[in-house]
Amino acid sequence: MWPLSRRAHPKFLIDIDGSGRTLVQQTWDRLCHLIPPERIWVVTGAAHAEAIAEQLPDLQHLLVEPSPRDSMPAVGWAAAAIHALDPEAIIGSFAADHVIAGAAAFADAVHQAVALADSGLVATIGITPTEPSTAFGYIESGEMLSVPGSPDGRAITTFVEKPDAATARHYIDSGQFSWNAGMFVTRTEVLLSHLARLQPALHDGVVTIAADPSTLDALWPTLTRIAIDHAIAEPIALEGGMAVVPGTFSWDDIGDFAALATLRGSDESTIWIDADGFAAATDDTTIAVVGLHDVVVIRTPDAVLVTTREHAQRVKEVPAALQAADRTDLV
Amino acid sequence: MWPLSRRAHPKFLIDIDGSGRTLVQQTWDRLCHLIPPERIWVVTGAAHAEAIAEQLPDLQHLLVEPSPRDSMPAVGWAAAAIHALDPEAIIGSFAADHVIAGAAAFADAVHQAVALADSGLVATIGITPTEPSTAFGYIESGEMLSVPGSPDGRAITTFVEKPDAATARHYIDSGQFSWNAGMFVTRTEVLLSHLARLQPALHDGVVTIAADPSTLDALWPTLTRIAIDHAIAEPIALEGGMAVVPGTFSWDDIGDFAALATLRGSDESTIWIDADGFAAATDDTTIAVVGLHDVVVIRTPDAVLVTTREHAQRVKEVPAALQAADRTDLV
Repeated sequence: MWPLSRRAHPKFLIDIDGSGRTLVQQTWDRLCHLIPPERIWVVTGAAHAEAIAEQLPDLQHLLVEPSPRDSMPAVGWAAAAIHALDPEAIIGSFAADHVIAGAAAFADAVHQAVALADSGLVATIGITPTEPSTAFGYIESGEMLSVPGSPDGRAITTFVEKPDAATARHYIDSGQFSWNAGMFVTRTEVLLSHLARLQPALHDGVVTIAADPSTLDALWPTLTRIAIDHAIAEPIALEGGMAVVPGTFSWDDIGDFAALATLRGSDESTIWIDADGFAAATDDTTIAVVGLHDVVVIRTPDAVLVTTREHAQRVKEVPAALQAADRTDLV
Repeated sequence: MWPLSRRAHPKFLIDIDGSGRTLVQQTWDRLCHLIPPERIWVVTGAAHAEAIAEQLPDLQHLLVEPSPRDSMPAVGWAAAAIHALDPEAIIGSFAADHVIAGAAAFADAVHQAVALADSGLVATIGITPTEPSTAFGYIESGEMLSVPGSPDGRAITTFVEKPDAATARHYIDSGQFSWNAGMFVTRTEVLLSHLARLQPALHDGVVTIAADPSTLDALWPTLTRIAIDHAIAEPIALEGGMAVVPGTFSWDDIGDFAALATLRGSDESTIWIDADGFAAATDDTTIAVVGLHDVVVIRTPDAVLVTTREHAQRVKEVPAALQAADRTDLV
């Protein structure tokens, strides 16, 4: 989301929605309503460890990935590390760059997911769709489960990748599909045993690293680069081991400015003359737009982006163009 | 030309074309090629006197208008003040907010105008049109004059106001019309005698002020508010007392961003992705435009303007909207 986010300053480290808290701080706040801070763990890349530590001063457990190996090594490492401290632990994994509104609905979904996880299932929170989006993967839910503490829990039939528009429409109409937001809740023991069975080398790697952090730099680069969905969620779903609870809270991963516009609204100080769209200045300066419609204007201290909602997805080409022009300070 | 120019910082005080010199400095530089600095006089409003003095450190004659009374009182005051020092003087008046390229052609036109003025005519430099613009008034030239030193001087038949498009087309096709850039060259004695005849009260006012500057504040508000064109140029033309020399240099009053774009070109640092137009950041930051065509983006330290070349004329509505919103700091 250039110019708001940069390589060294990704979406989760910035106050992207103008709330006064960065997305990782919002995630922290949300979880602090459910568990004490000393039970929150963060896994992040080396480039962002310092910023995370600054933004979350009460954080006690920070796992720093030497390099990106996708989500299964990250979650697996945390699971193994927590498991070593508490073999009875139930963990939930949550991305730090999502925007969620509705604390009560979020808490209810997590509590239901914990109940399902306690029964030995791997639970996820499926976001109740608000439109036939083609930007997200979907979760197909099956039979109701009668797990105490989770009145809404259902088995997962299957995970499906981002659909085309017609398929998405069909998913919504069926009422059986929810958006996959990558939120997984499970016993560490259950996750690690699935991992041992499905990705044994990866399992052994994260368990070794958790037991002896001095092995991190040597072992980490050897871990299979794979997403948690592909590594365990999809195969377990086919075996009947996955459950889903509906997430009825408002959720967005703000993948582009069209989404951000919907979420945040324009700076009230913007002057629109025969014009409309979304405008935001992070440096409290004034934007004026004359004679353009559905336009997106973003101003930061060192850059201005001008585009349209329709072209918002192509903004990702800007950092590439800057890189090509050797202006890496702006990437 | 908001946000580049502001009420307290008009076009002539800023480096609008990215040349490194403000427009009044460029005007100064141009005249310094023709006459010594001690013979340059500046008439300006009280709000801009300090900035003028800073920008033109070698300026020796600064006349500060207590309030705006249009161009005839301003030029008349300067003429009377110079006449008091040198009754033989020939003066030329030039706006400080025009962009001119072609120093040799400008010098030649001024020299020819001085020759015409020396013969007792009031001379003007008519800009040779490059297109049938409806943004300028026109000068219709008549018979060739055979004044020594002005091989191209012609009598002026009439001055005409800004025409409609069809009329402008006709003017261009006829070859008899040039743009009125408000550049007048005349003996002070000739100008003052025309003024005494055509606007006697105004004449007496400026002569009194020139003789006794302590009368300025009392007399200035009583002076007729009138443009030099209407006060003397048009009536004198009908009497056969006006002459014109062709100004073949490149000239623009950069009335809008479309004109500025043509003159200046975009910042080379701008990233265009499926986009084109004109972009300039006065604070050396980076602008990126995605999916918009013929767009104009101007960034200053405290504002951003986004418009299109087509809508450039409507930018003047922005200061009004800011004023209405009580954000006078930006006006």
